[in-house]
Amino acid sequence: MDMPTPDLPTMPEQPGISAECRRMNSILSIVGDKWTVMIVMVLVEGPQRFNAIKRIIGGISQQMLTRTLKALERDGMVSRTVHPTVPPQVEYALTPLGHSLAVPVRALGAWARGHMEEIDGHRIRYDTRDLAG
Amino acid sequence: MDMPTPDLPTMPEQPGISAECRRMNSILSIVGDKWTVMIVMVLVEGPQRFNAIKRIIGGISQQMLTRTLKALERDGMVSRTVHPTVPPQVEYALTPLGHSLAVPVRALGAWARGHMEEIDGHRIRYDTRDLAG
Repeated sequence: MDMPTPDLPTMPEQPGISAECRRMNSILSIVGDKWTVMIVMVLVEGPQRFNAIKRIIGGISQQMLTRTLKALERDGMVSRTVHPTVPPQVEYALTPLGHSLAVPVRALGAWARGHMEEIDGHRIRYDTRDLAG
Repeated sequence: MDMPTPDLPTMPEQPGISAECRRMNSILSIVGDKWTVMIVMVLVEGPQRFNAIKRIIGGISQQMLTRTLKALERDGMVSRTVHPTVPPQVEYALTPLGHSLAVPVRALGAWARGHMEEIDGHRIRYDTRDLAG
């Protein structure tokens, strides 16, 4: 066939990018989790008790909230304070590290809110394109 | 017991925040996915073919890459171009919407890279704190 080779705008091989992606994989397992993002969004407003966080988020199980708060505490992003009442009250708060994460997390949330309708429109067009023949 | 009630800095009930969190849940299912973030990071450098994306990311299965690219195409963030070669070459590229998502995604990535060592330090201290007692 005498077809001209298409002029593909391919990127030259970048040897460093794969290692960067592997590192990003490990990083995103920390901060790229949906529940992590939601808990950070709640606690950025102020400290909260377990049941209040659970109520505010809605739709998160007891087990998932426990697990995610523990992971955030382990990563130094959330502090856990036990007040000596009967029964003891446990309060969760963002550390300075957690507050610094809230900055890019809010930017992502703002982008998502700002483009939600546009994305919905794309989905509707995609899902009906075969019907339009 | 005559214990004083601790002065907890609790937040007043905010009725709107729960609906906001539910909306955020749906939004984060789109953009808060680890593989989505990685594909956007690869394609922001320029269009790529399927196998090149797979090789650059590393550790993503054929099925997961297919599924995530299809979801991104459905959301209007990635375009899919079939070049009429034999065999046909299929190329994926970010749309303007996809490029705009890359901005907050990179900010999150920059935060994560900048705090990786600090987080590692917290993890080590957390995991060894019971041993130190």
